[in-house]
Amino acid sequence: MNDDESRHAVKVLRMKAGDQLHITDGQGSFYQATISEADSRKCTFFILEKKSVPARKSSIVIALAPTKNIDRTEWFVEKAVELGIDQIHFMLCQNSERKTVNMERIEKIAISAMKQSGQAWLPACTGIKPFQQILTISADQKFICFVDQSNPDLLKSLATVGKEYLVLIGPEGDFREEELKQAMDHGFRKVSLGHNRLRTETAALAACHTLNLINL
Amino acid sequence: MNDDESRHAVKVLRMKAGDQLHITDGQGSFYQATISEADSRKCTFFILEKKSVPARKSSIVIALAPTKNIDRTEWFVEKAVELGIDQIHFMLCQNSERKTVNMERIEKIAISAMKQSGQAWLPACTGIKPFQQILTISADQKFICFVDQSNPDLLKSLATVGKEYLVLIGPEGDFREEELKQAMDHGFRKVSLGHNRLRTETAALAACHTLNLINL
Repeated sequence: MNDDESRHAVKVLRMKAGDQLHITDGQGSFYQATISEADSRKCTFFILEKKSVPARKSSIVIALAPTKNIDRTEWFVEKAVELGIDQIHFMLCQNSERKTVNMERIEKIAISAMKQSGQAWLPACTGIKPFQQILTISADQKFICFVDQSNPDLLKSLATVGKEYLVLIGPEGDFREEELKQAMDHGFRKVSLGHNRLRTETAALAACHTLNLINL
Repeated sequence: MNDDESRHAVKVLRMKAGDQLHITDGQGSFYQATISEADSRKCTFFILEKKSVPARKSSIVIALAPTKNIDRTEWFVEKAVELGIDQIHFMLCQNSERKTVNMERIEKIAISAMKQSGQAWLPACTGIKPFQQILTISADQKFICFVDQSNPDLLKSLATVGKEYLVLIGPEGDFREEELKQAMDHGFRKVSLGHNRLRTETAALAACHTLNLINL
């Protein structure tokens, strides 16, 4: 167990040698284990039982422009992991107000939400990349959310069951028309999430939940 | 205009007499108006144009046990209003860790989210009430979310289009079996929101978004 987990187990949960614990590797397995040495820096344990959880049939990947106020982005990460997501990309757009993300914090939030929600797969979160690079990611169904009165296509209507999805969510000032065009040239479909004007992090979560519901 | 709104218009947005503004009464109307007197305590205006927005055909009412950490509940209010909700009740359950809610703060968050998301209807938020009282609220379709491996019914499968929905979301320790039974005796259906174990505020938002999607 690493530093943080050891401290948590031994100092916070006050676990002792012989105590049982339920752990996950974030790679699809749960383990029933027993603590062999309750060291608060390097707690050791032996595994009694392993249970594997198959990966989901669909894959939800969301690329979003991180919000000016990072709390909102961190909130999205927590909630998306709880609801179910496979990968989160951060993306630098022309209207982006924030150009950096503390990936160590994001990783901690994702791990905590995975454990909290009883999952065995840790979603991959990757550092900020230019919009152009995000466009080259491959997926079965690629969508770009864009606020547009003339856009009647809903994500829930276009997405179909059991696919690899990639959804782009723009910054506070939305995508520029030029970016929208580039995405469509790369095979992305322009979609709407509903009638209301949503904040970046709300739109990202709504997209994530919509795709989860389609596959439920 | 009240104190807060006047101060915002005059001091923050630096609006002057003659400037146009776009306002809502939270009761289904938008107004195009012109400021007549830019007083930072009582800003006055005259209305140029009124546009009415019909109420939605469905009605989404969520009753939740407020979370120990109130930030999580406030976050739910903001996001639910953005996505679309008609009424929020706070509910006192046997396992409730929090027994009070600052309704003035909740009201401010709801108003701000309504404006942010471009809506003309302000959802009603009501102060904390005992679980028993919540059970007597009438609705076309009444659901209680309960974490239960033996419960295969999904909210998305049981809810039908264009109805008045009432959904109950329990506290951190969930509902007691006795409360579940009482709800079912009052005509509530037990439902699940998916495979993952969700926090109170995440479950409440997932329920709200599910009902919005069904009606989209």
